[in-house]
Formats: sequence, C-alpha cells, structure tokens
Amino acid sequence: MSLYNIPLFFQDTAAIEGDMGMLWMLISGILVFLMQAGFTLVESGMTRSKNVVNIAMKNVLDIAVGSLVYWGVGYSLMYGDTNGWIGWSGFAFNQGPADLFFQTVFCATAATIVSGAIAGRTKYNTYIIFSIVMTALIYPIAGGWQWNGDGWLAQMGFIDFAGSSIVHAVGGWAALIGAALVGPRLGKYTEDGKAVEIPGHNKLLGTLGVFILWFGWFGFNGGSQLAWGGDDAVGASMVVLVTNLAASGGALGALIISWLKYKKPNLDMTLNGALAGLVSITAGCGNMGEGGAIIAGLIGGIIVVFSMEFVEQKLKIDDAVGAFSVHGLAGAWGTLVIGLWGIDGDAGIGLFNGGGSSQFVTQLIGTLAYAAWAVVTSFIFFFVLKKTMGLRVTEKEEIEGLDLSEHGALAYPGKRQREIED
Amino acid sequence: MSLYNIPLFFQDTAAIEGDMGMLWMLISGILVFLMQAGFTLVESGMTRSKNVVNIAMKNVLDIAVGSLVYWGVGYSLMYGDTNGWIGWSGFAFNQGPADLFFQTVFCATAATIVSGAIAGRTKYNTYIIFSIVMTALIYPIAGGWQWNGDGWLAQMGFIDFAGSSIVHAVGGWAALIGAALVGPRLGKYTEDGKAVEIPGHNKLLGTLGVFILWFGWFGFNGGSQLAWGGDDAVGASMVVLVTNLAASGGALGALIISWLKYKKPNLDMTLNGALAGLVSITAGCGNMGEGGAIIAGLIGGIIVVFSMEFVEQKLKIDDAVGAFSVHGLAGAWGTLVIGLWGIDGDAGIGLFNGGGSSQFVTQLIGTLAYAAWAVVTSFIFFFVLKKTMGLRVTEKEEIEGLDLSEHGALAYPGKRQREIED
Amino acid sequence: MSLYNIPLFFQDTAAIEGDMGMLWMLISGILVFLMQAGFTLVESGMTRSKNVVNIAMKNVLDIAVGSLVYWGVGYSLMYGDTNGWIGWSGFAFNQGPADLFFQTVFCATAATIVSGAIAGRTKYNTYIIFSIVMTALIYPIAGGWQWNGDGWLAQMGFIDFAGSSIVHAVGGWAALIGAALVGPRLGKYTEDGKAVEIPGHNKLLGTLGVFILWFGWFGFNGGSQLAWGGDDAVGASMVVLVTNLAASGGALGALIISWLKYKKPNLDMTLNGALAGLVSITAGCGNMGEGGAIIAGLIGGIIVVFSMEFVEQKLKIDDAVGAFSVHGLAGAWGTLVIGLWGIDGDAGIGLFNGGGSSQFVTQLIGTLAYAAWAVVTSFIFFFVLKKTMGLRVTEKEEIEGLDLSEHGALAYPGKRQREIED
Repeated sequence: MSLYNIPLFFQDTAAIEGDMGMLWMLISGILVFLMQAGFTLVESGMTRSKNVVNIAMKNVLDIAVGSLVYWGVGYSLMYGDTNGWIGWSGFAFNQGPADLFFQTVFCATAATIVSGAIAGRTKYNTYIIFSIVMTALIYPIAGGWQWNGDGWLAQMGFIDFAGSSIVHAVGGWAALIGAALVGPRLGKYTEDGKAVEIPGHNKLLGTLGVFILWFGWFGFNGGSQLAWGGDDAVGASMVVLVTNLAASGGALGALIISWLKYKKPNLDMTLNGALAGLVSITAGCGNMGEGGAIIAGLIGGIIVVFSMEFVEQKLKIDDAVGAFSVHGLAGAWGTLVIGLWGIDGDAGIGLFNGGGSSQFVTQLIGTLAYAAWAVVTSFIFFFVLKKTMGLRVTEKEEIEGLDLSEHGALAYPGKRQREIED
Repeated sequence: MSLYNIPLFFQDTAAIEGDMGMLWMLISGILVFLMQAGFTLVESGMTRSKNVVNIAMKNVLDIAVGSLVYWGVGYSLMYGDTNGWIGWSGFAFNQGPADLFFQTVFCATAATIVSGAIAGRTKYNTYIIFSIVMTALIYPIAGGWQWNGDGWLAQMGFIDFAGSSIVHAVGGWAALIGAALVGPRLGKYTEDGKAVEIPGHNKLLGTLGVFILWFGWFGFNGGSQLAWGGDDAVGASMVVLVTNLAASGGALGALIISWLKYKKPNLDMTLNGALAGLVSITAGCGNMGEGGAIIAGLIGGIIVVFSMEFVEQKLKIDDAVGAFSVHGLAGAWGTLVIGLWGIDGDAGIGLFNGGGSSQFVTQLIGTLAYAAWAVVTSFIFFFVLKKTMGLRVTEKEEIEGLDLSEHGALAYPGKRQREIED
Repeated sequence: MSLYNIPLFFQDTAAIEGDMGMLWMLISGILVFLMQAGFTLVESGMTRSKNVVNIAMKNVLDIAVGSLVYWGVGYSLMYGDTNGWIGWSGFAFNQGPADLFFQTVFCATAATIVSGAIAGRTKYNTYIIFSIVMTALIYPIAGGWQWNGDGWLAQMGFIDFAGSSIVHAVGGWAALIGAALVGPRLGKYTEDGKAVEIPGHNKLLGTLGVFILWFGWFGFNGGSQLAWGGDDAVGASMVVLVTNLAASGGALGALIISWLKYKKPNLDMTLNGALAGLVSITAGCGNMGEGGAIIAGLIGGIIVVFSMEFVEQKLKIDDAVGAFSVHGLAGAWGTLVIGLWGIDGDAGIGLFNGGGSSQFVTQLIGTLAYAAWAVVTSFIFFFVLKKTMGLRVTEKEEIEGLDLSEHGALAYPGKRQREIED
C-alpha cells in the first residue's frame, strides 16, 4: 500500500461499519432466540397444567426442526434468486452466518405462533408435520415477496420492516384456521354455545413470558435494521425506542378498556395488549415517530380486547391464547397504520399526514396478500391432515391431558393436575 | 475530498467510536429492561401467592406508564436546559433515541422499587398515581441534579456513576415512607408487637428474579459509561467486572452473617445480600478497583441483614421485600464508600486511601440531599393520597387477596391460595 | 502528527477492532452469566421440590465464591506465565477486565455442573469446599493446558474452542465421581437394585432453564472467538450458527431415540439432547461446517439417551440430572469429533474428510488427559472429604429434604412438599 492508496481508508471504514452491523444482527438474533422461551411460558402459563409438557415439546421442536429445515430449504426459497414469487439457490444456502442465524430465529417464531392457538387437543405428530411445512414453505415463500429485494411486494414499495404481516399475521391467520379446523377444547362451550373461561394455570410465568417476549422484540425489530453505523445506528436505536413506546401504549390501551368493560384492570388483557402493541409497531418501527408509535400501539391494545371476545363468542373459535387477535389482527393493523400516519424521514407518507393514499393502498394489498396466502395454505394443510393423520387426540386423551397421553409425563408430578374437576 | 483532508479520518474514527457507544448503550438498555421481569419475580416469589397478579400488574404498569410519562415529561425535567435544580426543554424531548431509551428503563426501575415494599395491601388506582408522580417528577428532578451536567451536585463533583443514590436510594426511601404510611399487612405483627414471618410462596422464582436482576445490572452499571471505544471500552468492562465482584461479595457477606445469626445459611438473606452488593457498587463502579468493590459489596451484604431486622422489629415497618434495606440503605452506603476508598484512575480520592475528606463530604451532601428529597416528596404524596383516595384496600379485600379483589383473577387457579390459613 | 503518519491509521483500525472484540467478549460474558440461572432451573425443575432452596444456594454460591476465588487465584494459575502445566502470575491477576470477567463466568459453569449430579443428599458445607477447590485449582489448572497459549496441549495442536473437554467434560467427570462417592438418593434403587424414577417437580421451569442455557451458550461459544472484526466477525457468527444447529440436532436425536425406545416423545430426553448437542459442538464450533455440526449434535443427543440409562441401570450411579452423560460423555464426544470430520478453513483435518489421523490422535490425548485429571483430582477431593467432614446428610435430613434441614426454609411454603409420600 502507498500514501496515495486513500480509498483503502474508506474501504476500511465501510468494513468496520459492516462488522458492527454483523455484531448487532447477531446479538439481535440471540435476543430473538429467547422469544421461544417467552412463547413457551405464555402458552403454558395461560392454559392448563395438564398440557404443559406438550407445549414445551412443541416449542423445542419449532426451533430444532425449524433451524434445520430453514437452513436446508427455507432460506433458499426466501433469499435465493427469485422470480418475485419464490426464490431458489440450491439447498443449504448460506450467504452469511449472522444473517442466516437471524432469519432462522424469525422463522421459528412464525411456527410457534400457531402452537398456542391449538393447544390442548392437537396430536403431536401432526404438529410436527405442520412445523416442517411452516418453516420450509409457508413462511419462507411469503417472506421472500418482501424481504428478498426482488420480491413482488418489495418492488411495489410495500413496507413491513420487521414482519407485522410477514411473521405475525401469517402466523396469526394460520393459527385461526388451525383452531377452527381442530375445533374447540372439550368444555370450552356449553351446550347452548356459551363460551366458558378456561383460566391459565400460572399467570406469574405467563407474565414472565411476556416480559421475555418484549425483551426479545428489541432484537426482532431493532435487528431488522440489518446494519449499524452512522444513520443506521440512530435508526436502529429509534426502532428500539418506538418499539418500547408502542408496547407501553398497547398495555395501557388494553388495561383501560378491560377496566371499563369488566370493572377491574385485567392482567391477561394487559399482557395481550402489550404483545399487540409490539405486533402493531413491527411493520412500521422504521417509519414512525414516538407519538405515532404510541397511538399505533394503543389502538392495537384496544383491538385485541374486542377481537378476543369476538373470536371466542361470535366466531366460536377456541383460540386458546388469543394468537389470532394478538398476532393476526394486530399484525394487519400494524401493516396498515403505515399508510395512515407513517413517515419516511421527515415526510409524511400516510393518508392522515399529507402522504396521499398510495402507500395505504400498497399496504392494503400486502396485508391482503399475506392474509390470503396464510389462510389458503394453512387451510389446505390442516384440511388434508385432518382427513389423513387426523388433527385431534381422542376425547379420553384430551381429558387426561396431552402430557400423559402424548408424552407419558406430568409437568408437576407429585400433585395430580385435575383442573377440570377442581 | 483530497489527500490533505486528513481531519476527515479522525472525524470518522470518532464517528465509529460514537456508533460503538450507541450500540453498547442500546444493548445495556435492553438488559436493564429485563430487570422489570426480575423485580416481578422477586416481589412475587418472596410474598404470598394471593397477590401475584397485583404485583405483575404493578410492574407492567411501571414500564408502560413510565415509558410514556418519562418520554413526555420526565426526560425534559432531567436532561433539559437546567438552572441546576430542574431542567426544562419542552415536552416529548429527545436528544437521541439510544439515550432516551436507556434513561427510560432506569426511570421505570426507580418506580418499581417501591412496589415491593407496599405489596399485599395497597390500592391499585393509588399505585397508578404514585407511579406517574415518581416517573414524571420525583425521580427525574432528582436525577437532573447529578446526571444533567449542569446540575448542582454535578457541579460540586458528586459521584454517582449509575445511581446508588439517584435510582436506588430515592426508590428505597420512598419505599420506606410508603410502607410506613400504608401500614403493615394484617397478621404481620402479633398483638404484643412481635413480627411474624410471612414467607414467600415461590423461592425458586425469587432466585430466578435475582439472577435476572444481576444479569440486567451489568447493563445498568456498564451502560452508564454511555460510551465505548478506547478508554471507555476498558472502563465499561471494568465496571462490569467490579459489579460482579461486589454482588459476589454481598451474597457471601449476607450468607455468612445469616449463618452465624440463624445457624443455617439462609437463601432469602443471601439473595438480598447479592442485590445489596449490586446496589453498593452502583455509585462507585467507575471509581473502584477489584478489592475495593468486593469489600464494598461485602459490607453492603452485611448491612442488609441487620437493617432488615431493625426495620421489621424496631421500626415495626412492614417492608414486604426489604426494599428499603436493599436499595435505600445499601444505596446510601454505596454512595458514601466512594469517599472512603474510591479511586480516580490511580489516585485515591477517599478518606482511607490518601484522598483526604473532601470527596467524602461531597458524597455525604449528595446522599443526604437525595434522602431528604425522597422522604419529603414521597411523604407529601402518600400523605395526601391517604387523606383523599386512600392507600389501602379493605380488610376483607386484603384477606381475600388483591388478585381477586382488585383484578378478579387468581395467579394459580385450580388450587385455592389460602396461605394464611395453612 | 503529520500527513505521513499513516501507520497511525492502521493503529486506529486495529484499536477499533480491538474495542469491538472487547464489546463482543463482554456481552458474551454477560450471556454466559445467565447460564447460572439456567442451571438452577434445570437442576431444580428436574429434581424434587424439597431440595430447591439447597440447589439455589449452591448455584448462587458457585458464582459468588467462584468470582472471588477465580479472580484471586484461579486466573493466575490458568493464564499466568506457565511452564506448560501450571501458570503463575501472583494473586489477583488481571490482564484485562473483559477477559477476566468472561473467564470468570466460564469457571463458575464448571463448578455448577457438579452440583446437579449430587443434588438431594450432599452436605452444604462440604459443597462449599468443593466449589472453592474446583474454581481455584481443578478447573484453572486444566484450562491453562490449552487456553494459555503456552500450555502443553496448546503446543500439541489440540483443539477445544470453547471447552467441550475443559469445561464440560472436566465438570462431567467430577460429577460422576461425586455422585458415585456420595451414593444414590434414598429410594433411588429398590432392594434388588432396580432403578426407580424420581421425576422432576417442575418441568416447565426445567424447560425454561434449557432455553436459558441455549441462549447463554451463544455467548459461551461465540464469545470464545475472543475478537470481532474482519474474519473474526464472520467466524464468531459462524460459531453461533453452528451452535444453534448442533443443539437442534441434539434435541431431534434424543427426541427420535426416546420415541423409538419408550414409544412416546420424551421431554426430559429431548431437553437433555439439546444440551448434549450444545456440549458436542463446544470444542469444534470453530472447526465445523453446518452439516458437520448437525451430525455432531445429533449423535451427541443419541449418546445421552443411552448413557443416562447405562449410568443409572448398569453403573448404578445416581446422577440426579444426568450431568455426566450431558457434559462428560458428550464433552468427550465433542472433543473427538473434530478429529473425525473437523475442518480448518476449507481443509479437512479429520479421519473421514481426508485430514489423516494426527488431529484425531491429538484430540484423543487431550480428551483422555482431561478425563484423567478430573477423575483423579475429584476422587482425591471427595474421598478426603468423605473421610473427614463427610459428604452426606443424615437419613433423617434427606427424607425431610435439604431445604428444611440445611437451610431452614421451604421453597414453596404453604403446601407441604412430600413428594415421596405422594
């Protein structure tokens, strides 16, 4: 090298910025990984103690199978050379270990969302097939439409920064279809169709789970900057800031509404509100100021209270942890809100802040596309499985609990776990 | 640009160091966020099962309300242009998202400290008002005296690196006043004034909570370096190292004393000792070598054992989790110890290592100022609330448990939670 | 400085890369710290509720005593100037706070592995002595052979990137010897020598513990790169990626085998399989591609199922949580597998990928050396203690549970914890 070789200097600066970006992405991926534990706690804590081992087995499976399948197949379909609809770059594709790891833990999240909705009555071997299909096909193909730069939604200018639609709504819609096709838990509805509350067996662990998810979400959203250095450093920090504000807004929205509706401030609703707030900002966390994020989250938290009631009492679908309301509907809301008051730098791009209607229309198209994709593919999947392997354990097994019938073990041996009888 | 534009190079190096600092601050803030989960577990695990939902609701509220209120108001009062006593830079002030996020999670911590002390008998709507006042006014004004470079204590040369006084002692003194004014839990004292132990319902989760707090504290103290790069990188690493040593010293100090006093090594005391060790190094973690940190922590751990006994049996104040002893008294100790054997680089600045008395006097002034501020403001607050809304639930509600009476839900449905009767 | 002072530029780039490396090491150390919580949950959740306080006290002790002892003595023996077998650089040696912190949390891990195996019947004061000996002598001396660049195994070209042998197998072998000398828990074997299952009392917390360990392991393995920047950034990311793949392989391997053997997919085995997968990649995570890592983990997961059965039923050693199988045997396997299909960059260094037998022989020597060291030193230690202080509580104390007899407190007061009678 010589005195005149100045470009090397810029190269080095860029290399260092690249290294910092890789560090942030890797750490973010590690945070997202822990969300698997958060989901396990929320799903277990908010349902009955006789199905805890089964829920743990599903969540461990989601990350274990998901990691292998997404590496082997899914990542190629999502980030490989694409025709706009589906990528292809051979199997075991790896264009950088930090990125592959980060995308892998995202993928596992999408699968896990479904497991909560269908808790307490689904066959374990059927769930394994679902988990493979979700992580190998349904999620990666959907994700490539936007996050592969050459995807058709990316080309349209659709915005879904960290996956309100791609991860959460896809998971949420699949959860709704799954819950509908597998049918309600025994005893969930009385003979005249009234919904019966089946309270969670450990709300402290459910709360811990929500805190862990909130914690991991900083990596989920912040890491989606995929870079660090200069504007990206400020940008990713801003993402984390507004993520926290939206979660706070969501918790308060649900707390207030539940207090007004049920006369007491309700923990389950407040926790679901926080999660809905997080989902509501996941698409727009790079396109939202503090005020916009708070209101987006607040409305997400309000939506979830009404939606859970609607799904349970009107649709009569037994979504055991409200996965559709929290991830599906709030995910759609979070995608659309960018078209209402999203910003791009200092410029408004929404209907309500002078950006016109074009972004909103684009967001609507993407939202509908992801909903349609998830509904159709998961319906086909669950329907075929229902007619072949079967989705549901026997009535006797369900009453006994999946822990004993499917796994031969109780989560809390030493006391019998007869909550139904209690 | 030209060959001669060399300053650009230094600019770039500085920019990269700035970016690394932002990365460390953001990650530290994320770690501190998880402390909210740690507090929830400690407070729940170390008290009775009939108030778990209430504790969860208070902790979720602290972060949710605190995030909004601190962004809207508190951060301005703390970091805005100041006359030395109170800052002011309009509402919704944001001088950088990583910093605002980091300061926000600190603020939520200060509020949460109080919730543990008054667990089991305080009205939820009163607690909400307290949480708002704490995060909007009490904590931010106090913090600005030191952490706003133009604050009067900063100008005096007072040292409180990460908030032994600013966060912990302010929270701890408010906790003591709150616990005194709300009065002891029913059954805590016999008719002749003897204290009755009310054991925590889940010490495993209490232990998990302490580990999570310890984990988050590395961000709490280490992130307070507010920078990374060169001396700051080594400095922040040193902060983390001595934080761990002080926590270890605190755990051992309390373990040994409890063993001598009660004939058996006591878990509750050991855990509180670890926390006291952490609080004891929080002010001085940038001004303490390894040996100094261990001894500071060890003494903090010993203090907490005697203090908890004193508060419970002599003052007859029912601080349900020892929040005053752990955060208030150990916080004061941690602030003062800098004046005893603190260092500045290689130079001693304490009474015992050749630094003379001036730093000790400054530390004493700050310690007393924060104690006075917290005692006076929280007394006014709790006193006014007591005379208006009321602080305390009815006797019937308390016996039933706040979970049912305030929130209409049990944490562990399926078994009745009647510990008093057990 | 002048225009010609170009070397400064390279110096600065190197300094910044050094700072990034320190950041990654520090954050990794913080992640590893949380593994202490993971071990507490796994050991508690997978054993009986009457020994939970004791397990918590052992794990808090391991980090508290370990942090002090390793700083005071161990780090010197490990990283000080060495004759190849033992280092020496005076007490309270510190060649950099980020490194000392990172090595400290590793050391605590090695001690903790043993506590699980001997749970439920070991005297607490004896355990304290063990914890001191382990963190001051057994682990540091062993570690220096390889991680001190002048150690005799390092000189031979032995590879143990993050400690399959150094941390896990050393801990695992000591666990086996400890469990053998302390003897089985009462009721573990029938009079005719048949093993009786003593199920864990909270498998949800056990599962949470495994997720936390998996999470912390990304720091354990990834941080062992000890650097970040350029090739090191990609290298450390690759370490994290293959660590996750091996854990996934291990979980699946154990899940499948347990399903075949016991007719149902077993949670305990699946969790232990994930841990075994992690241990299996810990030595080779810098020398393994994705496919190699998956297979290494998968075999590790299979090994653990057969090994646990063998230890319990053939050796009749009551290793309460399978610590030897998970850490000891999978640790040996993870060390050896580098000699089978490890890679160095693009070149194969194993028996099966064209690298010849020399690396395998070196790996075998190291594996045997660590096994021998751990067996001999822990045998001497436990044997001397058995003949002097005694290893085991009385029969009455064991039946009552260590929580009451050793610590005077129940983990879950309010209900009596009589699982044996249940």
